[in-house]
Parts: sequence; structure tokens; C-alpha cells
Amino acid sequence: MTKRIAVLTSGGDAPGMNSAIRAITLSALRSGFQCFGFFHGYNGLINQEYTELSAVSVTDITQLGGTILKSARCPAMLEPAGVLQAANALRKLHIDVLIVIGGDGSFRGMQALAAHWQGQLIGIPGTIDNDLSGCDNTIGFSTAINTATSAIDKIRDTANAFERVFITEVMGRHNGHIAYHVGIATGAEAIISFENCTAENTSQVLAHLKNAIEQQHQHGSFLIILAENLWPGGAQALKTELNSNADINCALCVLGHIQRGGAPSVEDRMLATELGIAAVEVVNGSIKANTEVATPVMVGKIHGAIVITEVEKVLNMDKPVSQEWVQRYQHYLAEQ
Amino acid sequence: MTKRIAVLTSGGDAPGMNSAIRAITLSALRSGFQCFGFFHGYNGLINQEYTELSAVSVTDITQLGGTILKSARCPAMLEPAGVLQAANALRKLHIDVLIVIGGDGSFRGMQALAAHWQGQLIGIPGTIDNDLSGCDNTIGFSTAINTATSAIDKIRDTANAFERVFITEVMGRHNGHIAYHVGIATGAEAIISFENCTAENTSQVLAHLKNAIEQQHQHGSFLIILAENLWPGGAQALKTELNSNADINCALCVLGHIQRGGAPSVEDRMLATELGIAAVEVVNGSIKANTEVATPVMVGKIHGAIVITEVEKVLNMDKPVSQEWVQRYQHYLAEQ
Amino acid sequence: MTKRIAVLTSGGDAPGMNSAIRAITLSALRSGFQCFGFFHGYNGLINQEYTELSAVSVTDITQLGGTILKSARCPAMLEPAGVLQAANALRKLHIDVLIVIGGDGSFRGMQALAAHWQGQLIGIPGTIDNDLSGCDNTIGFSTAINTATSAIDKIRDTANAFERVFITEVMGRHNGHIAYHVGIATGAEAIISFENCTAENTSQVLAHLKNAIEQQHQHGSFLIILAENLWPGGAQALKTELNSNADINCALCVLGHIQRGGAPSVEDRMLATELGIAAVEVVNGSIKANTEVATPVMVGKIHGAIVITEVEKVLNMDKPVSQEWVQRYQHYLAEQ
Amino acid sequence: MTKRIAVLTSGGDAPGMNSAIRAITLSALRSGFQCFGFFHGYNGLINQEYTELSAVSVTDITQLGGTILKSARCPAMLEPAGVLQAANALRKLHIDVLIVIGGDGSFRGMQALAAHWQGQLIGIPGTIDNDLSGCDNTIGFSTAINTATSAIDKIRDTANAFERVFITEVMGRHNGHIAYHVGIATGAEAIISFENCTAENTSQVLAHLKNAIEQQHQHGSFLIILAENLWPGGAQALKTELNSNADINCALCVLGHIQRGGAPSVEDRMLATELGIAAVEVVNGSIKANTEVATPVMVGKIHGAIVITEVEKVLNMDKPVSQEWVQRYQHYLAEQ
Repeated sequence: MTKRIAVLTSGGDAPGMNSAIRAITLSALRSGFQCFGFFHGYNGLINQEYTELSAVSVTDITQLGGTILKSARCPAMLEPAGVLQAANALRKLHIDVLIVIGGDGSFRGMQALAAHWQGQLIGIPGTIDNDLSGCDNTIGFSTAINTATSAIDKIRDTANAFERVFITEVMGRHNGHIAYHVGIATGAEAIISFENCTAENTSQVLAHLKNAIEQQHQHGSFLIILAENLWPGGAQALKTELNSNADINCALCVLGHIQRGGAPSVEDRMLATELGIAAVEVVNGSIKANTEVATPVMVGKIHGAIVITEVEKVLNMDKPVSQEWVQRYQHYLAEQ
Repeated sequence: MTKRIAVLTSGGDAPGMNSAIRAITLSALRSGFQCFGFFHGYNGLINQEYTELSAVSVTDITQLGGTILKSARCPAMLEPAGVLQAANALRKLHIDVLIVIGGDGSFRGMQALAAHWQGQLIGIPGTIDNDLSGCDNTIGFSTAINTATSAIDKIRDTANAFERVFITEVMGRHNGHIAYHVGIATGAEAIISFENCTAENTSQVLAHLKNAIEQQHQHGSFLIILAENLWPGGAQALKTELNSNADINCALCVLGHIQRGGAPSVEDRMLATELGIAAVEVVNGSIKANTEVATPVMVGKIHGAIVITEVEKVLNMDKPVSQEWVQRYQHYLAEQ
Repeated sequence: MTKRIAVLTSGGDAPGMNSAIRAITLSALRSGFQCFGFFHGYNGLINQEYTELSAVSVTDITQLGGTILKSARCPAMLEPAGVLQAANALRKLHIDVLIVIGGDGSFRGMQALAAHWQGQLIGIPGTIDNDLSGCDNTIGFSTAINTATSAIDKIRDTANAFERVFITEVMGRHNGHIAYHVGIATGAEAIISFENCTAENTSQVLAHLKNAIEQQHQHGSFLIILAENLWPGGAQALKTELNSNADINCALCVLGHIQRGGAPSVEDRMLATELGIAAVEVVNGSIKANTEVATPVMVGKIHGAIVITEVEKVLNMDKPVSQEWVQRYQHYLAEQ
Repeated sequence: MTKRIAVLTSGGDAPGMNSAIRAITLSALRSGFQCFGFFHGYNGLINQEYTELSAVSVTDITQLGGTILKSARCPAMLEPAGVLQAANALRKLHIDVLIVIGGDGSFRGMQALAAHWQGQLIGIPGTIDNDLSGCDNTIGFSTAINTATSAIDKIRDTANAFERVFITEVMGRHNGHIAYHVGIATGAEAIISFENCTAENTSQVLAHLKNAIEQQHQHGSFLIILAENLWPGGAQALKTELNSNADINCALCVLGHIQRGGAPSVEDRMLATELGIAAVEVVNGSIKANTEVATPVMVGKIHGAIVITEVEKVLNMDKPVSQEWVQRYQHYLAEQ
């Protein structure tokens, strides 16, 4: 039986979302399904702003950053009325399956919808922050860390020329996946992230940083990678405190939204393509979860295999940064 | 007890080799070991051309393509006399451990050495071709596929402007890891690789290609990714045959050595860093193989975990391209 | 009076063509003109395949390689019948001005049209080869040399790792603008181009190359930049001759069409924007040629100023590579 | 007669400085001169921290960001005692010619030196800000605008996905060369720079910005390029005011030091190479100023030709942003 599959991208956009849209569309068409795209995340669902997706509409999008379906936050989905409107729209348009590409907020939207709509709900993890369990990597993470690393390689050039201390703030919302990957990849001299720095130990971190800089700085530059949303008062405050407490003069760079854009890396294009195909295979039954799972589900990739996880579980589990890396840099900050 | 660890890079250079050298050096020093680097692969070992590696010598190399230790093929290692010279050099310099970063040819050199030298021999998989078992990815593979993909994104621009058929030859020696990754990542219309094309079925491949181009080409460009060392007469021959047999006029691009160079991707820097650390941890005993393994061994990463494999096994096992991908493109070539 | 302006892109596509289309469209609309785009170069003119261009149709195209209007060679324009069809189409569609972005072949098409159509014909130099007089640089040249240089920087990595001789063939049709720029920018050890190598002196060039390689190669890699369409038998023949005549083993890389694609450099975006604006200013009379010029004309930029030149003159004048650069490398090839 | 030439890089580092160092060194050696490099700008001169430069020391540096000679600000050169020390060092080391690559601060150092040292002083314009007269472009400017433009292309992706207003702050010290180039190249919807915004008209700029955003924002994203050191309270203040005064919610990105680093563009490598050669040709007399000029001088490139200008004049002349561009965007901000 032919089915009507709809897809939307929601929350912070992430490079690779277009590859997922393309894979869903092509796989759906090959399975004999119809495929639709809602614009602007859940807003387009509520407003019935959508388009039918064909092979032509997804030609030459896999290499593009952003999302052809646009994305948005949707406060209406936090209200019962909005959720009902969304459910009604799905019924009215005879949608059988809704695939949502996004992060935890977008997945909560799926949970809300599940109470009012009987169709199939499938999530695909798409966020540069990599802060979702049920998968090794989220779509967009690889591109974000490569973009940040290229930017910091440039900062290293000028830091070396001046033998200077630099604080570079990277994204990651409330975890250190980006900070640790970027820190290791750039050979940063220090990483300050949620995993090794809390509100309680900032003065200790400052003291260790001072020691590290004094000992290592003689032979060149010193790069500090700082996770966003962490330091009290922000990156600028850390710079000021290093200056006033330790007489260390830093330059500051907040990488910001450049980490969200750009052509996706091969890793993100592949992951998005595989997860898009997997989502359609869940629909046509060619792949199944190992155990019984309750809708909505998320498809992810863990250790090379496609894994289907209840969204409930995804939202309740943490995916911490490798303790080994944390220990290594903790040690570093603490003693060297 | 302090040990003397030596490292060399051998065979085709691969982006990320410098990250591995850096990680080995810093880990060795932290373990209280001395660390040496031989230049020009096994040639530097035979000629005792080497340097002691310090923290300063590996500063700011993680972001560099190529290898600071230089690389080379070493025909002398295929002769008993050369192997004996190499073994004698290791003895004379009181080396306890030799770490070799390279591909299958380099690993055969380790096997040859093992018969004449009692020290510890550890391999790290470094080749852009990803043609080594015992690991999911080799160092350099990620950068190579990202470089090739960026180049083909550019070719797509001009192919679209002219609505033209392009053959792009990618590296990979004798397997299709690069071809399939790059083909999927760029949304190529066809992939021709060892896995779906043999000397016996070239005329069938040509016929299918003709059909596919005729059916799809109306709405834009058509990209064919061709694995190197595959088509009889080379990429130019394929171009000529498509022209003479099917009246299809293609442009041709052989990506070549640009796939070997450039700043390593984050994925390659991380993998190389982890494997470099792991190699030293094998030396200091903090990680061990699950079962008894005979020297020489290789450290690799499989499904997120460090795995120690006998080099003998690495060389005797195949690591095929995902059959799922092959089927998908085979099907495509065959019927669409 | 409102005018109807049409634009087409013709011949080899060049990065920046989209910036020119955008600038023409926005300037035309601001001047109160209507703006149309023909697809596929002169073919779209002959077939009346076109679209009206609005501010929305040129949004977010300035950063894209290729051309949204597609390009093509058009053999029909070499025949009187084709030219007549094109002229009739312009009359039928009441076009007042035709702007052609392309190279010398495209400009010859304008000359042919001028004999059969009384409208205004304005050319904009768009070709990566920079082989048009009447301008310092053509649109696309800056991006092409930057792309080639980045690629050769990668080749330098692997050439250094192996201390190897590389021949890299670059585009340029029949002149050395790309070869000399890329050669100087990459610090190439030798440049072989039309300006310093002819059919008569190849054996001399080979001999000098042999000397240069022998003297310089000891301390690293040796890069030879070779202009396309130059060496008898092609780049492969040069490689073979260096091997057989001088026992020098080279690797070979033909950069090919990657030089045509990719996001345009700032320099190309700026130049294309300025020339697109200038073309419309020629139409609305706000800029004029210093002296009387016969239609068709080309707008170019020379020494920072917009210059209007008869297409006839453009096609009859040479724009040679800087003799200073040629001398420097000639000297180099000859004596060092 | 052989001469002893010394070179230093001073002030903010700029991509291409290494190409200039290489060109000076190779040209000096070819002229039979000796060549030395002082480290850390004028500090290395005062401290006599230097190295002799050979062909080998400048191999493979042309593609590197930063400067192998390091750079620094040097407060000591603002004091008579420091200048005297520097002059004495030049005498002690028998330096005949000092070439300084840097910006206006570095050139003031040359003027100070000239009062106490009889040797030849030659400046080369090296700063990403392009704020020096006597040349069309300074070394580093092309790379900086290309880097900023690539970053903003990424921001455009995410701005489009969210149909969002973005403020992006770019460098430029106290002029709008970077802001205008980057704004035009990215197709920014607004540019706010020294040339069209002063302390007196900020409320007017805000009002126009509000109108422009309201009229244009319906069909997509809206990018504002803001020059650094301009808006009272900084970029964050502009964001806050747009929010509180006009209920416009912007995202903010401060590009910062990534604009200083990275491999130089071809344009910067060529310019630096030509100016480096020219500086040595001034020394050996093969090029001369058109009229009598007083030392110190600067070599620059204007309209394709090498021009020698007194540093005094360079420091006293402005090099404004093209009034044509300013008018275009002023008009835009004011009325559209």
C-alpha cells in the first residue's frame, strides 16, 4: 500500500539535513510512497505550509548547508492548542508517517504529537551539538567540528606569530563534545568545558590555567578552548579574570554561527544519507528494532549499525564526553 | 624502566600521520620513554638517519599534511640483506620498540624484521585507501574522501552549467572505499568500482551506463565516479568507449595526488591521536589484546574501541566495501 | 523609456558569472528596465528558452559557482542560418539590449549578430583563462588560480613527504596566465608555458629541466607547472621523456575541471558585480566610452577604471603574460 | 659591493608576510647580498635576536599564514631610548638596509629610526586592514576578505534556514575597506561602516535599518555587515538596540582573529612576492622613484605598477573607500 510520508527539519539547522531530506525522498519514492516536506519546522505543519518532494526537488542539495525546508523553533508546540492543530493538519493531509530531523526540543514535539495522532513518528538526530543519546554522532556534528578546527588553525597562525594566549569559544549548548573534539584536533593547550569545570571550581581552574600558561607559554602560543554557556559572565569575563588575577593578556574569539553552516563533511552526508534511508526502511518494515519499542522512535547509528531507540529513552539518557579525554585534560589542567 | 621507542612513516603518505607522530611522542615522554624518528621510512632505519623527538619537535604539526619524518617506498626491505641491515641498526641504536605508520607494504616490512629482531613491533594503519582490516578506518581516509568530495562539488558546478557527463577517477588502489564514499557523498549518478565491475562485465557496465545516462541526463549533469586501476586502458579508455559505443561525450577528471595532501580532517587527527596513544599504551602495558597475539601487531579502532590485531591477520583478511552500498549502485547501474 | 535587457552566459562557465547576472538584474530593475535571461548560451536565444529575472531570482546566487542560466557552446552561431534565427528571436521578443558574458568565441557570436540586429550588444569578459584584452582580469580567473593553488599546496605536502618531482598541468587554453600565477604563488621550481616553451625548443627545455632538478632536488620536492595544450603528446609525454631521457621519475597530476567550479573568490565577485553594473550604466548612458566606439563593445576593468572597448579590438589584441615573469623563469630554466 | 639586508615583520601579522620574506631573501641572494631576519618585530632588532636567511630557510613558507619571523607591537620604539638601541644594533651588526613589513605603526618606527641611523629604510605595506595609502592593496587584505566572505557564506546558510537577521562584525580598524568588500561579495543587505555611519547619525541608521529589514526580510535572511570599533557599545549594543527600539531579533557573530590567519590567497602571495622583489630592486638600483624621495620609503603597487612613496606621505594621506560604493549602500540604507 502506498503511504504518505512527510518530513520536517526543526530547531537549530545542521549541515547534512539536506542529505537526509534527499535520502528520505529518494527512498520513499523507490518504495512507492509519496513524500512531502513541511516548511519552517513544526510551524509549517501547523500552518499546512508544505510541498510535495520529487527526485528533481532534491537534486543537487546534498552538498548544501542549511535546509531547503527551512527550520525554526516553534513555541506553539509547547501549548496543547498548537499540538492539536498539528495533529489535525496531519489528519487532514492524510499523512501516515512524520519524520522529524532535529534535536531534543524537536523530539519533545514528537512526543506531544503522539498523544493526539496515531500515525508513525520517526526522529532523525540532527544538531551540531551531538547531545543526543541513541547515536554515536548527530548529523551536523562532524561539519561543525571541522569548521571550528579550520578556524582555530587560522587563529593558531596569528597566535604563533605573536606568541600569544587565545581564548576561543565554541558551541555545544551544555556539553563538551565540540570543545573536546576541537581541542584535541587543534592541539589546544587547554580545554575548559562542563566536564572539567563547574561553578564551584572556577577559581581552581583559573589557578591551574595560570600555571599551565606560565610553564608552557615560553615556547609559543597557548590556545584555550572554552565551551559556550559555561563560564560565569561568558568568555569576556574569563579574559578579564585572567588579566586581573594572573596578569595574562589574552585575545578572544567567539566562533559562533559559522559552526552551523557550510557544505557538509562527507561524514555528515553519509550519516544523513544512511539515517534517511533507515527511516524509510522502518516505514516499509525492512528494518525492525531488536525489541519492542513504543512510538515515537529515533533511528541512529551506534558502532556502525543502525539502532532504533524510543525517543523517550533518547531524552532520558545522557551521552557523556569520553571520560578518558576528560581525565587527560583534567590532569593537564591540574598538574602540568 | 625507560624504553627507547622509534617511529617511522612508510609507503604513501596520508594526512594525519603527523598527528600520530605527535601523539606517540607526547605519550612516550609522559611514560618516561625516549622517542626517536627515522626519516624516509625504512630507508632512514637502514641508513640510521634519525632524530630524537621532543615536545618542541612535534609542536604545531598536528594540522599539517604530509609527514615531518618523510616517507618512502623501500625496495631494500624486500631483500634479506636490507632487512638484516635494518635489524642491525635497531640493535646498534638500542631501540626497544619500533612503531610503523603505513599500509600493507609497510606491515610486510615489520613481518620481515620480526624474524631478525626481538624488539616490539607495532603498526598503525596509515593510508588513504582504507584497505586494511583490523580497523574501521585507516588514517588519511577521511581527509582523502573529503578532499575528493570538495573537488567533485566543484566539478558538479561546471557539469551543471553545461548539463554534461563527467567521469572522475578517484584513488583507492584496488578497492572501492574511496569510490563508494565519494560517490554517495556527492550524489554521483554512477559509481564504477572493483565491487561492481570486473574485466568480464565491462561491456555490460557500458550498456547499463548508456541506459542510465539516457534516462537521467535530460534534467542535468551526470557524474560517474571511477575507481583507479580498474578500467582496461584507464579512464581515458572509458571516455573513448562511451563516445564510440554510445555516442556519449564525457569530460574527464583524474583527481590524483591532491587526495593525499592537505590539512587532516578532525576525524583523521582524532583517530591518529588515539592510535598513537594506544600504541604507547601497548608498550607500557596499560592496554592489552583480548587474546594472545603474536608480534608484530597493529592497533586499530573498530566500533569505537581500540583493537589489537596480529599483523599476519590484518594482511590475510579482506575489508570489503559495504555490500549494501554495492547492491544499491549495482541495481542502479543494472536496471534504472 | 523602459528597455528590455537580456543576458546570457556562453562558452566555458566561470565562477563569478552568477554575480554578474545578479548585478545586471538588480541594476536593470533599479533603472526601471525589464531583465530576461536566456538559458544555455546562444542556444537558448535561438530556441527562445528564457525567463524573466527578478530580485528574487538572483537572491543568494552570488556565492555559487557555475551559472544559473547554464552555459553551452553553440555551433549554430557559426552558421548564417543560426545567426539569423538568433536575430529574429531578439526582434520577436522585443529585446533592446543583449549582454553576453563569456570569452572570445562568445564575442564572435556578438559580432555575427550585429550584422543582422540593430539592438545594443555588450560583452562582459567571463572565462577562467584570462585570455582577453580590454581588461586586466576576466571573471573567473581569480577563483581558478586560487583553486589551482590550493590543490597544488596539497600536492606540495605529498611531494615533500616523498621528496619527489611532480608535473602539474593547469588550464589556460593557449596562454600562460594561469600557469605563471599559479607557479609563482606556489613557489613552483619550474613553469613550462607557451611563453617560454615552443615546439622548437622542447629538447632544450628538457635539458634545462634536468639540470634544474639535479641541482635543486637534493633538498626537497620539485614542482613543475605545465600549461595545457602545450607539450607534444601532453603531460604524460613530458613525464615519459623526463624518465627515458633524464632518468627522472615524476608523478603527474592534471588538475582539470576543478579549476572551473567552486564558490567565486571575493575578487571575482567584486569584478563581476562592477562589470554587471557598468554594462547597465552603458545602457542607461551614465557611463560612456572616451572615444567613439562601434557596437558591439565590451566593458572591462583596467588599472582600477571601467573601460569600454570595441569587441573587434578586444579580439585583435593580445594580452601577454608579464615579460618580467617570463624572463625570470626563462632565466631559471635556462641557467640555474 | 655586497650589502647586508635585514628584514622584520611588525604589528598585526598578515597572510602573505612569508611570501614577502621569501621574495626578499631569494632576490637578495641573487643580487649577491646577505640577508638577515630579526624576530618579533622591532623587539628582535633591539635585542639583536636574529637569524641569517638562506634559500633553505624560506623553502615552503609562501603558503603559510603568520610569519616565520614572528611579529609584535614594540612599545620601546615609542621611546627615544628604544630607538637609539635599535639604531645601535643596526650599526653593530653592519646592516646596510632594513626592510620593514607592517602597517602605519611599524612605519612610524622607521621614521624614528631614520633620525638615528643612516642606512636605507624600506617599508612594505602588510596589514589586513588595507588602511595605507601609496598602494591599492596591502598584503593580507585579499586573504582577510576571502576568509571573512567564506565565513559569512556559512552564516548565510543558517540565516536562510531560519530566515533570520544577522549582524556580523568584521575587522578593519578605523575604515571600511573590509566591510565594503565583504558586504558586496556576500550580497549583504546592509553595511554599517565609518563611511556611512558616525556618532551623530546612529539613530537615523537604526531607523533606516528597521525600514530595510521590514521591507526586505519577508523573503529570506537579512545580513548586516558591521565594521569593528564603530558602533557605540559595540556589536552587542547594536543588537540590543535593534531589539528594544525596533523589536527586531538578531543573531550576532564577531569574526575576529580568524580574519588574520590561514594560507594566503594567490593575490596576496603575488603582491607580497612582487613587493619583496621590488624592495631589493630599490636596494640594487634597478628600480628608482620617479621623483626624488626622502628615506624612509615604501614600495607599493598602484594600478599595476610598482610605486615608491615617502613613508611621510603614506602616513599623511588617506585612502578612502570607493565613494561609489558608499553612495550605493548609503542610498540603500536611507531609502529602500
